[in-house]
Amino acid sequence: MRISRIALFASAPILLGACASVGGGGRYADADLAVARAAMAEAQNSNLAHDLVASLTTEVGPRSAGSPGDAAAVAWAKAKLTSLGFDRVWTEPVRINAWIRGAARAEIVTPYPQTLAVAALGNSVSTPPEGITAEVAYYENFDALKADTSERAKGRIVFIDNAMPRTRDGSGYGKTVPGRGNGAIEAAKRGALAVVIRSVGTDHDRMPHTGGMRYDDKIARIPAAAVSTVDGDMIRRQVQSKQPVKLALFMQNSTRANMESFNVLAEMRGTEKPDQIVAIGGHLDSWDLGTGAIDDGAGVAITVAAAKILREVSAKQGVKQKRTIRVVLFANEENGFDGAIAYTNAHGKDQHQLVAEADLGSDRVYRLDSGVSEASLPWFAPLGPLLAPLGIEMGPNTGKASSDLGHIGGVHNLPAATLHQDASRYFDLHHTPNDTLDKVDPANLKQVVAAWTAVVWLATQADADFSGAPAKKN
Amino acid sequence: MRISRIALFASAPILLGACASVGGGGRYADADLAVARAAMAEAQNSNLAHDLVASLTTEVGPRSAGSPGDAAAVAWAKAKLTSLGFDRVWTEPVRINAWIRGAARAEIVTPYPQTLAVAALGNSVSTPPEGITAEVAYYENFDALKADTSERAKGRIVFIDNAMPRTRDGSGYGKTVPGRGNGAIEAAKRGALAVVIRSVGTDHDRMPHTGGMRYDDKIARIPAAAVSTVDGDMIRRQVQSKQPVKLALFMQNSTRANMESFNVLAEMRGTEKPDQIVAIGGHLDSWDLGTGAIDDGAGVAITVAAAKILREVSAKQGVKQKRTIRVVLFANEENGFDGAIAYTNAHGKDQHQLVAEADLGSDRVYRLDSGVSEASLPWFAPLGPLLAPLGIEMGPNTGKASSDLGHIGGVHNLPAATLHQDASRYFDLHHTPNDTLDKVDPANLKQVVAAWTAVVWLATQADADFSGAPAKKN
Repeated sequence: MRISRIALFASAPILLGACASVGGGGRYADADLAVARAAMAEAQNSNLAHDLVASLTTEVGPRSAGSPGDAAAVAWAKAKLTSLGFDRVWTEPVRINAWIRGAARAEIVTPYPQTLAVAALGNSVSTPPEGITAEVAYYENFDALKADTSERAKGRIVFIDNAMPRTRDGSGYGKTVPGRGNGAIEAAKRGALAVVIRSVGTDHDRMPHTGGMRYDDKIARIPAAAVSTVDGDMIRRQVQSKQPVKLALFMQNSTRANMESFNVLAEMRGTEKPDQIVAIGGHLDSWDLGTGAIDDGAGVAITVAAAKILREVSAKQGVKQKRTIRVVLFANEENGFDGAIAYTNAHGKDQHQLVAEADLGSDRVYRLDSGVSEASLPWFAPLGPLLAPLGIEMGPNTGKASSDLGHIGGVHNLPAATLHQDASRYFDLHHTPNDTLDKVDPANLKQVVAAWTAVVWLATQADADFSGAPAKKN
Repeated sequence: MRISRIALFASAPILLGACASVGGGGRYADADLAVARAAMAEAQNSNLAHDLVASLTTEVGPRSAGSPGDAAAVAWAKAKLTSLGFDRVWTEPVRINAWIRGAARAEIVTPYPQTLAVAALGNSVSTPPEGITAEVAYYENFDALKADTSERAKGRIVFIDNAMPRTRDGSGYGKTVPGRGNGAIEAAKRGALAVVIRSVGTDHDRMPHTGGMRYDDKIARIPAAAVSTVDGDMIRRQVQSKQPVKLALFMQNSTRANMESFNVLAEMRGTEKPDQIVAIGGHLDSWDLGTGAIDDGAGVAITVAAAKILREVSAKQGVKQKRTIRVVLFANEENGFDGAIAYTNAHGKDQHQLVAEADLGSDRVYRLDSGVSEASLPWFAPLGPLLAPLGIEMGPNTGKASSDLGHIGGVHNLPAATLHQDASRYFDLHHTPNDTLDKVDPANLKQVVAAWTAVVWLATQADADFSGAPAKKN
């Protein structure tokens, strides 16, 4: 997950039951509802999704755009999707600019020397070879920096101490991440030599959270790094000692422009309306520090497993799949969004019945929001009773796809669904070395796959076309 | 805390109430019991212990023996104890051999390349400059290695995959740590080139736990390192793929022999029996990866705060302290035990009324074991009703001092007490970069200090001499 998620969290007022009260379950054929129920049951017994995350994290591991892991992940995905029996598996090229992390070190030099756990933010330039040593200009949060009209930051290292609140819906991320994305711009505007942020995370681990940041072509490009939340506390305590705090920062990063990566696509083709697409997926790339289990190995696994289970169960029950289920595994979501843009460019004219992305970890779904035409809302309603036993409530008709599929969804105003997952612990791990397989709870993951099978299947089989004037634009 | 703790955990069967049923509270003067109660109340209101941990971790930070932090910690302790009004503050020299951590890197080379989070174990020799690359000889646990009479380990890197169980009493440590301490010896006996262990820890963080290891002069000295528990899982999964797993390990460490450090001692002198000593303390050194908040900044803070609070409260109530309370802050507990041995050598002839060390973090005390003469047991009994409101049970008369004071206690069969702290989360953090101030729960820490004030005060004021034939030798 990257900065672009912010948009997602900004919306979605809670109007529980708004959908469930409309329509009823009578419009689907009994056989279709039976497939949904059987697929959900199968999902809750199946280890497929967990096996997929285990395989991806163990056999590929970190896979940042342009790295050897990126190429290995594309090869892994092609082989895996083919072996799972998708009707079509193919890749589409994506031009990327690779950013490659080098060494990073930071320490407090005065008043009390301390080594800091630090990581460069994605896209950051390097420091000079001798590093940067300067006094800290402390800001309690990003707003305080933006409001500063003094010369305090000039010639200094700006430190932004924003603490991210823990919430189920992950909304603390959107409130905190602007300091990561735009901190370097605002600091450089004020003459700072570098910016260091408290990690955008809810943990107390001595692990920095990386993540994308950006520059403005008109503003000097200064190095940008994150220290762990714990080290942020250390900087603050030393600042509170009222003595000048001096930091030393050293980072060497590099870039390689105009490389090639790939979106990997796979379809379970429909029979009656094969050109109408239910597009689901996650992103295949990950940050480089962890092995990308929750971000976004889980999303890859959830959507691949849902498509596979639906094919198996519907075949076993002799029910024909009407529309095509397309799984898209995106390139470089984290540090460029290039795969999303490439997909939008290549598939803007496809007929999308629904777009939905899984990119918020592996914990349980607690709410489903539709984002479809008013006329087709009754076709969403039967999901209420199907999902209720999983502890999932029906939300308002303001759903959007997140991340990559959110891009095409926004550009073309596509019908969408949001399966809200519990993000309470997601940001403990997000973009850190701790994003590893052991953090995926197998039981929670099964619940998520079960929810996705139901949503995808009904979208695939509904008589109604979901497109047209969703209640709220992406 | 270091290997020497093992002895502690091996004993202490639970015989609740064994002490509380003996004697009764009548033998102490009412004024003495009033001081105990008032000191406990004060301890639960006082931020002193937390302030001490904050000061030590912020202003000194990591302080492994022989490092600049070690010298800074000694200076910190002298200044702090003096400012707190101890009657006497002094240092005693301790010869140490410093071991200095250099760079460490490890990775899986085949079948699936992965970077591993690794740290050298304390005392480990370096690898050759080009590192060591070899196939893994996998052992599920240390016993499996010791039982191996084959040539499987020869020319390989031994990996010991012992997982440490989580327990309240920390007893999982004693079961797991032999592989850390002696793994290199057993691996080298079998011709291995290096040993790598799964960290001795209960967490799932991507952080290796360091800790002391030893060599045998008759056996080749091979490099010894720990990977995080998560990376241990990764190695195991790759081994389970049935393909040969090859590791590359690079470490550069160094030593400096015959350096000087210091035990720091401070006394609140008694009036009636000033030469009888209630000796409490913790160790001033820490491992180098974290800032030594729970290991053992907490122990330093608990015992210093208990002595200070007792002096203040007894003075306020006009009650004279009979014996001398001595706080000993030990040098190099972690990687040589030199401070403990120096104290035993220097103070073996002192009259110790009680020895007790705090070296198991900052979480709540749940049981008190005495370790005193049968005749003096009634003088322990009044602690039962005093401590019960803190949720502390009375245990058997098999208590011992842990760590440093456990050394002199064992050598001279000294009367002792064990204040058992809840170690459930201690080994998530122990010897890692995560041993930081934020892990100290202020409320729990206050409870611990309150318990110590009661125990120390009654030992100081009891008519009885606690020494002589404890039920169980140290």
